[in-house]
Amino acid sequence: MKYFLSGIFLLAALQATAQELTKYVKPITGTDRMGHTFPGATVPFGSVQLSPETDTLPYELNGKYNRDVYKYCAGYQYQDKTIVGFSHTHFSGTGHSDLGDFLIMPTIGKLQLNPGTADQPHSGYRSAYSHQTEVATPDYYKVKLADNNITAELTTTTRVGFHQYTFPKSDSAHIILDLMYGIYNYPDKNVWTYVRVENDSLITGYRQTTGWGRTRTLYFAMAFSKPFSHYGYQDNTKKEVYRGFWRKFKMDQDFPEIAGTQIRAYFNFSTTEGEKIKIKFALSPVSTENAIKNMMTEAPGWDFDAIKKQGEAQWEAELKKVKVKADEETMENFYTAMYHAFINPTIYMDVNGEYRGLDQNTHRVTGFTNYTTFSLWDTHRALHPLFNILQPQRNTDMIQSMLVHYDQSVHHMLPVWSNSANENWCMIGYHSVSVIADAVIKGNTGFDANKALDACVNTAKHRTYDGLGYYMDMGYVPEDKNGSSVSKTLEYAYDDWCIAQMAQKLNRTDIYDEFSKRALSYRNVYDPSCGFMRPKLNDGTFKKDFDVLNTDEAGFVEGNAWNYSLYVPHAPADMIKMMGGNKRFVPHLDSLFDVELPDKYFAATEDITRDGIIGNYVHGNEPSHHIAYLYNYTDQPWKTQQRVRHILKQMYHPLPAGLSGNDDCGQMSAWYILSAMGFYPMAPGSDRYDLGSPAIEEATLNLENGKIFKITARDQKPGNIYVRKAELNGKLLNRLYITHDEIMQGGDLVFYMSAKPNKHHK
Amino acid sequence: MKYFLSGIFLLAALQATAQELTKYVKPITGTDRMGHTFPGATVPFGSVQLSPETDTLPYELNGKYNRDVYKYCAGYQYQDKTIVGFSHTHFSGTGHSDLGDFLIMPTIGKLQLNPGTADQPHSGYRSAYSHQTEVATPDYYKVKLADNNITAELTTTTRVGFHQYTFPKSDSAHIILDLMYGIYNYPDKNVWTYVRVENDSLITGYRQTTGWGRTRTLYFAMAFSKPFSHYGYQDNTKKEVYRGFWRKFKMDQDFPEIAGTQIRAYFNFSTTEGEKIKIKFALSPVSTENAIKNMMTEAPGWDFDAIKKQGEAQWEAELKKVKVKADEETMENFYTAMYHAFINPTIYMDVNGEYRGLDQNTHRVTGFTNYTTFSLWDTHRALHPLFNILQPQRNTDMIQSMLVHYDQSVHHMLPVWSNSANENWCMIGYHSVSVIADAVIKGNTGFDANKALDACVNTAKHRTYDGLGYYMDMGYVPEDKNGSSVSKTLEYAYDDWCIAQMAQKLNRTDIYDEFSKRALSYRNVYDPSCGFMRPKLNDGTFKKDFDVLNTDEAGFVEGNAWNYSLYVPHAPADMIKMMGGNKRFVPHLDSLFDVELPDKYFAATEDITRDGIIGNYVHGNEPSHHIAYLYNYTDQPWKTQQRVRHILKQMYHPLPAGLSGNDDCGQMSAWYILSAMGFYPMAPGSDRYDLGSPAIEEATLNLENGKIFKITARDQKPGNIYVRKAELNGKLLNRLYITHDEIMQGGDLVFYMSAKPNKHHK
Repeated sequence: MKYFLSGIFLLAALQATAQELTKYVKPITGTDRMGHTFPGATVPFGSVQLSPETDTLPYELNGKYNRDVYKYCAGYQYQDKTIVGFSHTHFSGTGHSDLGDFLIMPTIGKLQLNPGTADQPHSGYRSAYSHQTEVATPDYYKVKLADNNITAELTTTTRVGFHQYTFPKSDSAHIILDLMYGIYNYPDKNVWTYVRVENDSLITGYRQTTGWGRTRTLYFAMAFSKPFSHYGYQDNTKKEVYRGFWRKFKMDQDFPEIAGTQIRAYFNFSTTEGEKIKIKFALSPVSTENAIKNMMTEAPGWDFDAIKKQGEAQWEAELKKVKVKADEETMENFYTAMYHAFINPTIYMDVNGEYRGLDQNTHRVTGFTNYTTFSLWDTHRALHPLFNILQPQRNTDMIQSMLVHYDQSVHHMLPVWSNSANENWCMIGYHSVSVIADAVIKGNTGFDANKALDACVNTAKHRTYDGLGYYMDMGYVPEDKNGSSVSKTLEYAYDDWCIAQMAQKLNRTDIYDEFSKRALSYRNVYDPSCGFMRPKLNDGTFKKDFDVLNTDEAGFVEGNAWNYSLYVPHAPADMIKMMGGNKRFVPHLDSLFDVELPDKYFAATEDITRDGIIGNYVHGNEPSHHIAYLYNYTDQPWKTQQRVRHILKQMYHPLPAGLSGNDDCGQMSAWYILSAMGFYPMAPGSDRYDLGSPAIEEATLNLENGKIFKITARDQKPGNIYVRKAELNGKLLNRLYITHDEIMQGGDLVFYMSAKPNKHHK
Repeated sequence: MKYFLSGIFLLAALQATAQELTKYVKPITGTDRMGHTFPGATVPFGSVQLSPETDTLPYELNGKYNRDVYKYCAGYQYQDKTIVGFSHTHFSGTGHSDLGDFLIMPTIGKLQLNPGTADQPHSGYRSAYSHQTEVATPDYYKVKLADNNITAELTTTTRVGFHQYTFPKSDSAHIILDLMYGIYNYPDKNVWTYVRVENDSLITGYRQTTGWGRTRTLYFAMAFSKPFSHYGYQDNTKKEVYRGFWRKFKMDQDFPEIAGTQIRAYFNFSTTEGEKIKIKFALSPVSTENAIKNMMTEAPGWDFDAIKKQGEAQWEAELKKVKVKADEETMENFYTAMYHAFINPTIYMDVNGEYRGLDQNTHRVTGFTNYTTFSLWDTHRALHPLFNILQPQRNTDMIQSMLVHYDQSVHHMLPVWSNSANENWCMIGYHSVSVIADAVIKGNTGFDANKALDACVNTAKHRTYDGLGYYMDMGYVPEDKNGSSVSKTLEYAYDDWCIAQMAQKLNRTDIYDEFSKRALSYRNVYDPSCGFMRPKLNDGTFKKDFDVLNTDEAGFVEGNAWNYSLYVPHAPADMIKMMGGNKRFVPHLDSLFDVELPDKYFAATEDITRDGIIGNYVHGNEPSHHIAYLYNYTDQPWKTQQRVRHILKQMYHPLPAGLSGNDDCGQMSAWYILSAMGFYPMAPGSDRYDLGSPAIEEATLNLENGKIFKITARDQKPGNIYVRKAELNGKLLNRLYITHDEIMQGGDLVFYMSAKPNKHHK
C-alpha cells in the first residue's frame, strides 16, 4: 500500500521531534526577484503547492508580451503590496511557467468578482498585506488580509490543499473561486473550465489549459467546513458558446452547473467574529471522482492543525536525512536548500494509483510512485545525483516514471521537460539519459536497466529532434541549420557519454562503441584559433562575428561561449589538453571568474541577478555548475575550494532575495547541499564526486539503507576555506574524489580545514 | 457478456435470411428538406452513424446566424450536388443539432486542405456526385466521388465506422481527416482537438466541443489498411496557443502529435488502379484506449463485406420483429419507419462497459446496456411505447440509463433531452416520467420501480425548472413569468398524471393523490369564453391579444392554440366535457382538419413542409400526434379511422422528400408503425392502445417473450379505410382499444375493413 504516503507520514509525525530541523527552513527564500520560488505550503514532492499570488498582470501590454509577467513564475513577488488570492499549483524556481490553478480568495462586504489592480487594490477582491503578519514555514503559510481583516492559513497533504480563513463578524462573507486566474495566463489559455455544485458544501470541476503543457486538465473537489447560504458565478466567456435551452433556468444564482472559459464563482456565508471557514481542495489529474477519493483518504476530517503537524513531520523526516552542524546562516541555507530540493519532481497519481498518461488516457501505476515535473536540463546535474544518495527509492521511481513516459510518448522519446501528461520540450539535450545512467552506474536500479538503455538509445537517435540528425551525421549541429548549436552539440556529447557508460556496465559493447565515439563530438566545435567552443556552419567553417561574451542567439543558450566552452564534464582532462594544458587552461579558467562583464552583456543574461555573477561566471544559470570543480583536473585544485566557498557565500542567503537566479526545481539548491558538504558530481554517469570545500562543521547522512555516512570539517571557521587534507574512514585520501559506494557503505569523511591552500594535495 | 452485441449479431447474421426485409428500407427517405434523416450507414441503436455531408455552410452570414445551417441537422441534403466527406456521428431527424464528428474525405492530385464551396467545388477537397451512383441500404452507403473517380463505401458496427475507398491509379492519393468540420459548427464550437500518429497506420485522438452538448468529448482510433507514406496537417487555430519549444521540430510533415482547435490532417498514399484503401474508425466516449478496444473487438479484420453483411443481418433481425404483408409502398414505408425507429436512442458505452457520465467522470455499466440520445419530448409519445412492445429489453435498459443520468445529475433530474454525457434542456416538460410510467404500468420493469418513482417525483418538484415553481404554486405557468406557458402547463399536467398512475400501481398513495390533483391543471388554462386553452397571466387573468392560429411566442411551442388545446391525452373525456361535450367538440375537432391555414401562420410553423399540414392539423410536429385518435372518445370514432388513414397516406412516402417534418429520433416513424398496424397509445402511462385503421394486410409481431401477436386486416383494399368490426382471438371486440397484456400474451387481432364507416362501433 505504498500509495498511502500520508498514512506512513502520520506515523512519522508521531516519531519525529517537531521543528528540530524545519525551523531552519525559510520558504520565503528566493521569492524576491529571480528565485521564482513560492512561500506557500507543500509537503515533500507534493502534488499541491498552495501559495499566495501577489499580482495578475495582463499578459499583453499594447499588443506585446508583457515582460513583467515573467517575474510571476511562482505567483508571488516579495516586493508586492497586495495578495490576489491563493492558488494550488506552482513550479518551484522555474524560468518559464504554467499552473496557478484554482485561485481562492476570501472577502467580506460588497462582492467584487474581479481581482482589481495593484495601484487600485480596492477596485477588486485583492487585499493589502504586510510581511509583518506573514508566516512561511514548511507546509504552513499564514498572512493577514488587511483590507478584509481576514487571517488566511494554508497547509497541505500530498494531494489536498487545506485553507483556514478566520473571518470577522460579517453577514456578507464570500469565498471566491477564480477559474480565470492562472500563471503565464494569456487570454486563450483556458481551454475549458467546469464547475458542479454537488451540494451545499462540495464543489467539483476541472480546469483545462493550453499553456506550457499544451493539453492539460486538472480536476478538483472542494469541500467547505460550513454550508454556504448562496452561490453564483460570473461568466466572462467571450467565445461563442451555445446557451440555447439553458436559458430556461435563472443561472445567475444557485444554479449548480457552470462551464465556459472565463468563470469566477463565489460562495456566500454569514460569519461570527473569529469564525473559521475551512476549505479542503483536492486535486486529481484524472477525474473529480478521484479528487474526492484523494480528499477522503488524505484529509477526511477538519482538523487544520493536525494536517499542518503531519506536513511538518513529513518535512522533518525528509530533512533529517542529513543532520548538519554549522553556523546559523549555513544551517538556514542548508535546510532551505533541502526544502527546495525536495519539492520537485512532484507526485503525479491519485491515491488509487491512477494518473493521466502522455496519450491523455488514464493509466494505473503498478509497483512505484509516479512523478511529473521533470526539469531535466537543470536537475540532471546535481538534484538527481543528490537523490541517488538521499532519496534512492524516489529516484528509481522517478526513472520508472520517465520510462512510462517513454512508453507513452508518440515520439518514442524519454522526457525532456515534462509536466502533467505533457512534454513541453523546454531547453535542450536529452538529459533523461544522464539521470538513468547515473542511477545505473551507481547501482540504484529498481527498474529494467536494459530496457532503460534501449529507451536512451532510441531517444538519442531521434533524427528530427532539435538538430540531432545533423549531429549524428556531421558530429556537430550546424548553427545555420539549428540555433544554439554549440550548446546542443556539447550537451549531446555529454549525454552520449552517459549512454556509453551505461552500455559498458550492461555489457552492450556495440552501444558503448557507438556512443563513446559520439561523446567526443565536443572536439568538433572547438576553435583552437581562439580557444573557445564556437558555432560552426553547415559548410564546416566557423561562424564569423563571434563574441565570446554574448549569449543571445550566438550559438548558445543560457550561457555565453566563455562559460559554455568549459562544458565537457565527462572529459575534463581531454578538454584541458585540447585547450592547451594547465599552463594555458588555468589562467583561462581564472579569467572567467575575474573579468568584469560589461553591462550590455548582463542585460542579455537571463534569469539571474547581478549577485548571480562572479566576473563572467554565471551561477544563476546551470551550464556553469560544474566549472568551479574543474580546477581539480588542473595542477591547482585548491582553487576549486576557493571558488566553491566563494559561490556558497555569495550566491545563497536565507532571505527573500537570497537566490541569485532561478532555483530551477531544486538544481540550485542541490548544488548548495552537495557543495556545502564538500563534494559534487562533475559528471553524473560517473560514480565519482569531486571534492571541494565543505561549509558545514558536520553532516550526518542517514541513508535509506540504514548506513550512516558522516562528514566532518575539522577546524571549520571563517577564513578556513581550504582543505589541508581529507581522511576517509581514518585513512588519508590521496585523491580529489570519493565514490558513490564509499558514501553508501557508510563511513567517515573528515576534512581538515585551513586558511591556506595545500598546494601539494592533488 | 452482454456488451459484445456484435458477437450476438454475428450469430444472427448466420441465421437471418439476407435482405428479406432490409430490401424495403429506404434510408434516403427524409433526406430532402425537413426530414433531417441521414442516408449513411448505421446498425440498430449504433454509436456510429457514418454518413455523407453535402455542405459546410458558414454558421454566420453578415454577422447573423445563417438560417440555412438548420437544413444540415443530419449533414446531408438530397438536392445538393457535392459531397464534402463522410463523418461519423449524426442525429436522426432532430430539429436542432450537433455532432458531425471526424470528417473523412479521399482525394487525388493536388492536396487541398479546405472543403471549397458548393458554387466553386474545385476550390477545395469536395467532389461532385450523382444520385445515379448512390446506394443507401441499412448499414451500407456507396457513392462515386466524380471529381476524383473514387468510389466510397461505408458500413459500421456498433462502435466502428468502416470505410472502403476504391482509388484510380495515383501517385498522390490523399485521405483527409478534417477535425474542423462539424454540424451546427459555429467558429468556437471546437474546444480542443488532439491527434496522435501512433504508427504508420494507426491514428488516435479526440474532439472536444461545446455545442448542443455543452461539455462533450469524443475519442477515436483510426486504422488504415495500408501504411501511409507521409502525413501532415494544417493548423488554422486562431486562438493564442503556446507554441514555444515545439518550434524545435519541423511540424508541417510527419510530426506525430497535433493539438489545437482548427486542425485538418492528411495522409498520403500511392495507389494502383482499383486499389482499395480501407479505414476502421472506432469511437469511444471515454478514451482512445477504449476506442482501440472497441475496434479490436468489433472489427479486428479488414473484410468490409463481412462487416456489411453483419450489419444487414442485425437490421434483418430487428425488422423481422414485425413481419408485414401490404402493398409495396406500405411495405417500404413500414420498414423504413422501423429502420428510423431503431436508430435512436444510441448505445453509449464501450465494449468494456465504460462510458462518460454527466459528471464527466468515467463510469462502468453493470447489468445493462447504457444508451444516450434521448429526445424525450418527441419519443415518449409513441417510440418508447413501441419499444415496450417490440424492444422491451432495450426499453428497460434505456430507463436504467435515464436513472443513472438522474443519479449523476447535479440538478437531481431525469433527462429532458440528453446526449453524450450532457443535458441540453431542449423542449419542455419532464417526459422521462411518461417513459418510466408506461414501462411500469405495462410491467416492463427491469429496474427498481420505486426508486424510479422517487426520481420522477423529485424531477417533477424541481421548482427552479422552467416555470415549475409557479405551476406547483398556482396550478399553471403564468405567461408573463415564463413563456410557452400553456404548452408547459398542459405537458406538466400529463406528466403528473403519469406519476400518479405509477404511484397507484406501486401503492404509493400520497404521491398518487398529490399528482392526480396536479394532473388536472389543464383545467386552469382553459378559457371557456373562447373554447381554447389560453395563456394566463400571473394576476389570474387571461392574456389579451390571443390568436388561436399563432404559434410564435403566443404561449405555445411547436403548435398553436388550436392544436395544443387538445393536448389532454390522459383525460380526453373530461376535456371533451369541459369543451362542451360531443355536440360542440366534434365540429371543433373537424374544423382543425378542415380549415385552411393562412400562409402567414405557416411561415411561423417550424420544422414542417406544406405537406405536413392537413387544414390546421400539424403532423410534422408532435403535440398533435394523439389528436386523430380523439374521435374515439366522441360519438364518431370512425373519424379516427378516416383521419389516421389520411395522415398515413399523405404524410409518409419512401422518397427523399417523403417525410413531412423532422423524424425526431423516430417518433414520426413510430407513429406510422403503430397506426399502420391499427392502434396507437393515446396516453403512454395507460395500458391501452386506441384502435384506428390498419394500413397493412397482415402484421405478425414476433415478441421477445416468444409469443406471437398477429394483426390481420380482412378486405384490405384501396378505399376500405373504415373498420367494420374487430375481433380479438376470435371474439368480437366491443371496445375501441386493446391492452398491452392482450398484445404481449400473443393472439390474433382481426380488423374487418370497409369502405363505409360503422357508425354503431364505439
